[in-house]
Amino acid sequence: MIQVAVLGYGTVGSGVVEVIETNKAVINKKAGTELNIKYILDLRDFPGDPYEDKVVHDFNMILEDPEVTVICETMGGIDPAYTFSKKALLAGKSVCTSNKELVANHGSELIQLAKENHCNYLFEASVGGGIPIIRPLNYSLTAEKLDAITGILNGTTNYILTKMEEDGADFADVLKEAQEKGYAERKPEADVEGYDACRKIAILSSLMKGKTVNYEKIYTEGITKITSADFIYAKKMKRSVKLLAMSKGTEDGFFAMVAPFMIPEEHPLFNVKGVFNAVYVHGNMLGDSMYYGRGAGKLPTASAVVSDIVDCARHPGKTIMCFWDAEQVELMDIADTKRRFFVRVKAEKKEEAAAAFSSIEEVNAGLTEEFAFVTDVMTEKEFDEKIASIGGSINRIRLEN
Amino acid sequence: MIQVAVLGYGTVGSGVVEVIETNKAVINKKAGTELNIKYILDLRDFPGDPYEDKVVHDFNMILEDPEVTVICETMGGIDPAYTFSKKALLAGKSVCTSNKELVANHGSELIQLAKENHCNYLFEASVGGGIPIIRPLNYSLTAEKLDAITGILNGTTNYILTKMEEDGADFADVLKEAQEKGYAERKPEADVEGYDACRKIAILSSLMKGKTVNYEKIYTEGITKITSADFIYAKKMKRSVKLLAMSKGTEDGFFAMVAPFMIPEEHPLFNVKGVFNAVYVHGNMLGDSMYYGRGAGKLPTASAVVSDIVDCARHPGKTIMCFWDAEQVELMDIADTKRRFFVRVKAEKKEEAAAAFSSIEEVNAGLTEEFAFVTDVMTEKEFDEKIASIGGSINRIRLEN
Repeated sequence: MIQVAVLGYGTVGSGVVEVIETNKAVINKKAGTELNIKYILDLRDFPGDPYEDKVVHDFNMILEDPEVTVICETMGGIDPAYTFSKKALLAGKSVCTSNKELVANHGSELIQLAKENHCNYLFEASVGGGIPIIRPLNYSLTAEKLDAITGILNGTTNYILTKMEEDGADFADVLKEAQEKGYAERKPEADVEGYDACRKIAILSSLMKGKTVNYEKIYTEGITKITSADFIYAKKMKRSVKLLAMSKGTEDGFFAMVAPFMIPEEHPLFNVKGVFNAVYVHGNMLGDSMYYGRGAGKLPTASAVVSDIVDCARHPGKTIMCFWDAEQVELMDIADTKRRFFVRVKAEKKEEAAAAFSSIEEVNAGLTEEFAFVTDVMTEKEFDEKIASIGGSINRIRLEN
Repeated sequence: MIQVAVLGYGTVGSGVVEVIETNKAVINKKAGTELNIKYILDLRDFPGDPYEDKVVHDFNMILEDPEVTVICETMGGIDPAYTFSKKALLAGKSVCTSNKELVANHGSELIQLAKENHCNYLFEASVGGGIPIIRPLNYSLTAEKLDAITGILNGTTNYILTKMEEDGADFADVLKEAQEKGYAERKPEADVEGYDACRKIAILSSLMKGKTVNYEKIYTEGITKITSADFIYAKKMKRSVKLLAMSKGTEDGFFAMVAPFMIPEEHPLFNVKGVFNAVYVHGNMLGDSMYYGRGAGKLPTASAVVSDIVDCARHPGKTIMCFWDAEQVELMDIADTKRRFFVRVKAEKKEEAAAAFSSIEEVNAGLTEEFAFVTDVMTEKEFDEKIASIGGSINRIRLEN
């Protein structure tokens, strides 16, 4: 029997308890042993809850109980999750987490600590919710040199963009509606400014490189400037606007970024709609592969945490291989990365724009007060200079493929 | 160091050698040890080949060499692959295979043999080529009760259907072109009649149930009856025709089948085009997830075989958990499964058809000589009886979702 402690009885934590209870038979079979929730750590009490008697308020009770070998850290945030995770690993207890913030900040250190203490620090649920992506990267694509990961990693922004596309609505209105429905937080910055996706692509990129990709160095741009007019053009171009989190090896170096992109309808991420997430991985032998599913939500995320517990149960006293060193990956300056841009300028700037951007492709969607076009491939720096030289744009969105 | 023998130096076998050579550094890092190809078994000689001196013709040389711990069976077919695999496993040598035929026929037995001899029988490459799907089912979705798998599991037929859709061409013409391009075999039955997809869904279904789903009992229908007219209707209905391999738990029982289906454009498999494959999995906690990539081809398939070798290297003397018992899963008679049907009958049968199928939805695509419609949900048996009562149809295609 594996005695498990759950830290944080919120959405994901209570989901973990529910998944283990609901799928008991199949989970115990897959784990090769019985999983038992021994403690639930929370500041609150839960009178009337069926797990009421497992709730404790002192982490040390868990830490000092030698029976507990696996800890689910579903608290979120850096502190005290970081301290608790370190103490647990130092005591040889494996930690399974959904905490992308903590993994992005301290992943390599906690993985190293797990190794030194013959246990595991697993974080399948930290990216893509219920989509198996960490484990495929670590266990399945082991014969590949991976050179690109492109993901739709945030369900809230994908829901908003999908609604904008389908209803022709503007960002602010859809955000409000999403907040009312509970699909967006009252403080939506972490999602709509791309910060959440940034942490997640940092984690995936670190696993791809085997070294640390510092999320603070990843260029991040949210979706707040995307308007209904942009979608009118996108439709005309048979494209969609998606918030992509990507990292790529190019001949000029390795870059990572989060930003809205226009992608064509043939792109496998084109049909990833609503709250769904997907991760697109490119390897030198396999070519493209994609992983798709629910990127958030209580039960999908909890299912991923429990799959980590099962993995711990299958590897008692053994550290499952995971390559993520402390050494930092050098990232290209985003200004030096190259791509095409979709640009909207005021109608009267048409000739100026055509002169500044030698070769352009006009996009006419019937909006007479503006002139819209797609540029050639150029560096971000070059683009910024040219667009500044004509006094800026109404909006610009990068093109992918 | 892990000494590897490759059985069969054909497309996949030579791909295995190429992948190990090309990605040596990353593979050895992920394996935690060096992989070395010690033998290549083939009936032929390969003068001038860089691996010429590793080629042997006698399997016993491999079997009797205690240094060899992992064998890649990339021969295909039942014999002698079956005999060689059994002997290898009995000698405690792990076997990694791309041989769907053998896995579908003897999977549970060979897995059991591996367990008894503390080694592994791994077959990631047998389904979906380079798409990681076996390992996600076995290692990632361990907290799920899986109730449905729906896949596009054959690249040749998907290529043909995609070309028919895009070019408005007929089956025979596209098949001919595909054969000329090498995308289809000269004897195309295994692909176009659905036999290949049938083996693959048998393997996935067996892993889903943990028991054997006998491929001989899976209802299998190919794509040879699909015509360009069907695609005219499909377009009108905003649907596509795909050869789906599926297995599902329903309230009436568990069924598995391979057949062409019309799927709507919102369906995640709608955009799976050309030679790409995808597998759509439904679990009770996670909901839907999908795995997409190249379903065939030398290097993608070889990459999957090598990922299995890496897994063997990571688990020396240990059998990785895999649940697939010999006990057979009872399958529902396909006649009792329920769905909607798209049907084309001659124009003069319009009234008769409307009378036989109480509630129908006409599909008018401008083909005046026929009357096309979609039925209500009904059992296959009920549908067959009704359609027989009006003297048959020009064609009928099942609807999914």
